[in-house]
Parts: sequence; C-alpha cells; structure tokens
Amino acid sequence: MKTTIIVAEPLTKEAFAPYGDVIETQDSHHFSINAGMVERHHDLAKLDIDYADGGRPIISFFEILEGSSFPIEFDLVERHPKGSQAFIPMFDEPVALVVAAKDSDVTGADLRAFVTNGKQGFNFHAGVWHMPLVSEEKGRMFVIVDRAGPGNNCDELTFENEKIELQIP
Amino acid sequence: MKTTIIVAEPLTKEAFAPYGDVIETQDSHHFSINAGMVERHHDLAKLDIDYADGGRPIISFFEILEGSSFPIEFDLVERHPKGSQAFIPMFDEPVALVVAAKDSDVTGADLRAFVTNGKQGFNFHAGVWHMPLVSEEKGRMFVIVDRAGPGNNCDELTFENEKIELQIP
Repeated sequence: MKTTIIVAEPLTKEAFAPYGDVIETQDSHHFSINAGMVERHHDLAKLDIDYADGGRPIISFFEILEGSSFPIEFDLVERHPKGSQAFIPMFDEPVALVVAAKDSDVTGADLRAFVTNGKQGFNFHAGVWHMPLVSEEKGRMFVIVDRAGPGNNCDELTFENEKIELQIP
Repeated sequence: MKTTIIVAEPLTKEAFAPYGDVIETQDSHHFSINAGMVERHHDLAKLDIDYADGGRPIISFFEILEGSSFPIEFDLVERHPKGSQAFIPMFDEPVALVVAAKDSDVTGADLRAFVTNGKQGFNFHAGVWHMPLVSEEKGRMFVIVDRAGPGNNCDELTFENEKIELQIP
C-alpha cells in the first residue's frame, strides 16, 4: 500500500479554473440594488445542468454529521457527470477540497488540493473528480446547488493499493 | 398619507406556502451520504426559472451595504415574473420579509410579514410581490439563487398615499 501525500494550496480563481469556479465577492461583477442598500455580487458560478428527461437544479443543505481532523486519509473520489455541484459554507472557517481533471484516469498523481480562505465557496464543473466533502466540526452547514433528475449522476472510484493523505499547510 | 402597520409573524412552511418555500432542515427530506459523514437535506425550494431565450439559474451573493432598524418604513414592493428568487442568510440572525400574493393589486391590506428563526432561508415563487431585502447590520451576506436572462424580470410598485410600517414583535 502506497501513501501519497498532497498539501492543500490556497484556493484562487486562476488555480481552480480547470476544475470549477471559486464563489466569492473578490473580483466579482457587482452593482448596487435596492436604492443602494444592497450590493449584488452577480452570477458567481457556472451552473451546468443536464436538463434532459426532467433534470433540474436544486438547492439542498449538507450538514456535517462527523467532523474530520487533519491529516485526512481517503481512498475514494467521485464525480457527477450530469451536473455541476456548488458548495457554499454557512460558516467562516477554511474548507479543504481535492480535485482531479474531468477526463483523468485518477491516481494520486492527478490530484490537486486546495483550501479556502474562510469566505469562499466552490463549484465543481460537471464530471470533475473530487474527494467527498469533509469538514472539521460536526453541525457545520453548506448550501449546495446541484442537479436532481433521472439517470446515474454519481461515479465513484476507489484507489487500489494507494491511500491519499491530505495535509493543510 | 396613510400609514399601515404590519407585524411580522413567525415564518413557517404552512403560513408561507402561498408565497414560496421556507428553506430549512426542519421537516426536510434528508438522508446520509459520504459513508454517513454528511446528512443531505434534499431539494428544499422550488426553483422556477423561465428558460426561454437563454434564461438560466444563477448563484449570487447579496451584501448588506446599509443596515436598517425596526420599525422599517417602506412604500415599494417588487416582483420577478420570470423566476423564483431564493435567499439564504449566511448568518444566524432573524430576517424579516414582506410578501403579497402573485395576482393581487397590492395595497397595504394585501401584505403579510414574516420573520425567520435565524436558521431559515426563503424562496419567493415567480411573480410574488415582496419588499426589497433589508437587514439590520452592514456586511451581512445572503446566498441568492435566481434567474439571469433577457426580458424584464423586475416590476416595481410604489404605493400612493400609503406608507407601510413593518414591526417585529
């Protein structure tokens, strides 16, 4: 059994562009509404939904039932071929994520890890491999925007003879 | 000039059903994912988007630029005929909202006011009249899921000879 260590780098729009969108106010297209009382940071993620056969975008909440501590070990990634999946934390703490490019065969060598600055969400483009969501504290909540509808929309891949150890700097 | 006083009632799914959805974990359809580490509270709002001519759902952030204090006075409501609009606070404090039924002529007598329990979001169905978003503290953030696309998607109505005073109990 091989252990591959990956260290999370800061999440930025540039670094994350091959995998999805960083959902944040920084460098957003923004303008004021409601007679100047509210700023609208507009259209922060590319929602890519397969609408065939009644596919549709939905809003859900993900609630952390079991906290994780770093370094985190995992041996499974997943992808959603029929839709993007956006995660917006409802708390102000960093979140770590691991991705691999859409068409990669995915071994530890293909993975890249990021960590948010505590104010960012992220949107995986359809088909992008990612580590299932983890967070340190039980009870934390995320807003999720993804797809519901018929057909398989979740592929899982378990690494053989390889474990991934995710570290944050 | 007439002043109509409305007092916010607690936001519940039952009371709010004619206007939209309460986005909350309470009484949600939920199930565990990620090997039991995460609970998915699934499909919490009816996203109703007019997709004609390239209309599409988007994620935005609304940032409060100017805080309001109660009682709040207003004389304008708005509606979005081409799409639902979901508001999910990224903070744990109550939010007040005012709505009127879709097809009403809208005077003060048609308005109903609600206040969240600090853990709820809300989704206005397409065409439902509502007071523009207000909140007490500058810097508060909301996740918004609504529609982008061509065509008018915002009607405003200013009351003549009537001011509304919104109170929270």
